Amino acid sequence: MSGTLTRITLARRPAGAPVPEDFKLVSEPLPIPDTGDVLLEVTHLSLDPYMRGRMDDVKSYAPSVDIGGTMTGQGVGRVLESKTDGFNPGDMVTGMTGWASHACLPGSELRKLDPTLPPTTALGVLGMPGLTGWVGLHRFGKPKAGETLVVGAATGPVGSMVGQIAKGMGLRTIAIAGGPEKCRLATDTFGFDAAIDHRAHDTAKSLRTAIAEAAPDGVDIYWENVGGKPLEAVMPLMNVHGRIPVCGMIAWYGGANIAEDNQLPAMWRSILVKRLRVSGFIIFDHWDEYPAFLSDMGPKVAKGDIAYLEDVADGLEAAPAAFIAMLNGGNTGKQIVKL
Amino acid sequence: MSGTLTRITLARRPAGAPVPEDFKLVSEPLPIPDTGDVLLEVTHLSLDPYMRGRMDDVKSYAPSVDIGGTMTGQGVGRVLESKTDGFNPGDMVTGMTGWASHACLPGSELRKLDPTLPPTTALGVLGMPGLTGWVGLHRFGKPKAGETLVVGAATGPVGSMVGQIAKGMGLRTIAIAGGPEKCRLATDTFGFDAAIDHRAHDTAKSLRTAIAEAAPDGVDIYWENVGGKPLEAVMPLMNVHGRIPVCGMIAWYGGANIAEDNQLPAMWRSILVKRLRVSGFIIFDHWDEYPAFLSDMGPKVAKGDIAYLEDVADGLEAAPAAFIAMLNGGNTGKQIVKL
Repeated sequence: MSGTLTRITLARRPAGAPVPEDFKLVSEPLPIPDTGDVLLEVTHLSLDPYMRGRMDDVKSYAPSVDIGGTMTGQGVGRVLESKTDGFNPGDMVTGMTGWASHACLPGSELRKLDPTLPPTTALGVLGMPGLTGWVGLHRFGKPKAGETLVVGAATGPVGSMVGQIAKGMGLRTIAIAGGPEKCRLATDTFGFDAAIDHRAHDTAKSLRTAIAEAAPDGVDIYWENVGGKPLEAVMPLMNVHGRIPVCGMIAWYGGANIAEDNQLPAMWRSILVKRLRVSGFIIFDHWDEYPAFLSDMGPKVAKGDIAYLEDVADGLEAAPAAFIAMLNGGNTGKQIVKL
Repeated sequence: MSGTLTRITLARRPAGAPVPEDFKLVSEPLPIPDTGDVLLEVTHLSLDPYMRGRMDDVKSYAPSVDIGGTMTGQGVGRVLESKTDGFNPGDMVTGMTGWASHACLPGSELRKLDPTLPPTTALGVLGMPGLTGWVGLHRFGKPKAGETLVVGAATGPVGSMVGQIAKGMGLRTIAIAGGPEKCRLATDTFGFDAAIDHRAHDTAKSLRTAIAEAAPDGVDIYWENVGGKPLEAVMPLMNVHGRIPVCGMIAWYGGANIAEDNQLPAMWRSILVKRLRVSGFIIFDHWDEYPAFLSDMGPKVAKGDIAYLEDVADGLEAAPAAFIAMLNGGNTGKQIVKL
């Protein structure tokens, strides 16, 4: 099959926010499918925030796009030619086509679309963003009826999925969105109980006050895909045992708007990119495990299999000085006061 | 029984690091036990970093100590007089005695000690610090043989327990400790595979280089009880799917050494005090859940029970501008490019 493939490449790495000159449109002859391959005409391409990360040359969860390489992305399209079983010309499929008019991919990397659904749903509500909301909320958010959920970028394809699932499970759902129109969509179209316009608040503190009014019982789940001001606003409102699934930090992509001394964005980026699990815990919540601990460790301590050190201060009146020294690392081993 | 009870009270709230003048020693007649109570003579008192938090008048996981109130704390002691079943004069017990020479507590709040073990073990290796290490490592650290663990404050009663349990489970264990003597203890007494003296490193970067040398395969578990420089040093060394149990932030207690623009300590404090679970995740790890997602949500989308919005840009050449606008929140709904 002859014809022209048009694609958009990465012309150079963006300095901060991408600008049009970072991209370049190039054309070339259509590729010829090999055995096992499928040639397709892309009808719709998905644009997603994660693509911003691929434009940088830093270690991330996926390879960077090379300079001159096609911008990565999921597309849906129509099969033009198939050199593998299971795909026929005219079939609607989805796969990682990149930002391109056509794609030639192994059949194993394509999925046929359900013809009863609009093909674009495969890119959004039933695609990666929808899956992100569904998996992340159930697995990391662990929603329970009666709890309160706050969602950043709430009218986006991830946030709107999260809000609707949570609402259906009996949570109070609060949207953060940019501008009155998106706030209206959040409540009217996506059923959020309340929507807060972050653009109407200059400071994290002012945004926090608005969220606090909408969340009188505090926040149990903060769906974090933004970073920046919303994160700073919500954090002090979190309830004990709250959950924060982190699947993005769009406010901090590109390194803009970050105070020089603020280590939080770098930390948050590590949590996201490395899928870290950070768990605050307080031992007073876990005293019920004391008997199990004692049966496990007691005999080991008695046998001398577990070493321990004690640093003993003498007399009650020595306690303050010993305490002050301990906070500065002045003790060696468990600090005890012998009375 | 007549006599004098001596106790140490909070004289005033510390400004930053506590100083001796923040404490006051007071004496008063021995209390007379009521029905159900036990009067005991404290023989040993535990000093723990969490007590620093109790000295501040801020919302935390436990009430603050009032000005003039006895400093809280766990002690072990000998029963002098019992007005309840199960305790007799001479029994060794432990409970929340506070910083005091004697305590009068309900029998239900006391635990009799195993006479075959030294009584002070109830305050350290077999007390709250030991339990903290045991619960936190198993439940939140989820150690696996062959992984690498880094422990802050490694010769302390929590860190030394964590290191020894992990070593016994087949992990590579790396201690961070202050000074050559503690480093020697970490390897010789507690069996860490390597020990790094944080005092020998002025910057987080230099400390990071030393940890990286000791952890050639990266860090799977960072036991976080310090905050500050060690946290900053370790974070970039974390492996994908790493775990960070947070049970303290001693470097940041009292608000010292925090750059004005650095939001990280406040965030970390929230994670700790509120026992938050922060989970970074990347949807590309979860594609195996796609069929389950599709069976759950596909029919709901088909029936119109789940709303979705699409923002459609026209033509491949419109993709860069649409992408740039999306990163600034300029789209409404899932951003798609129609080719």
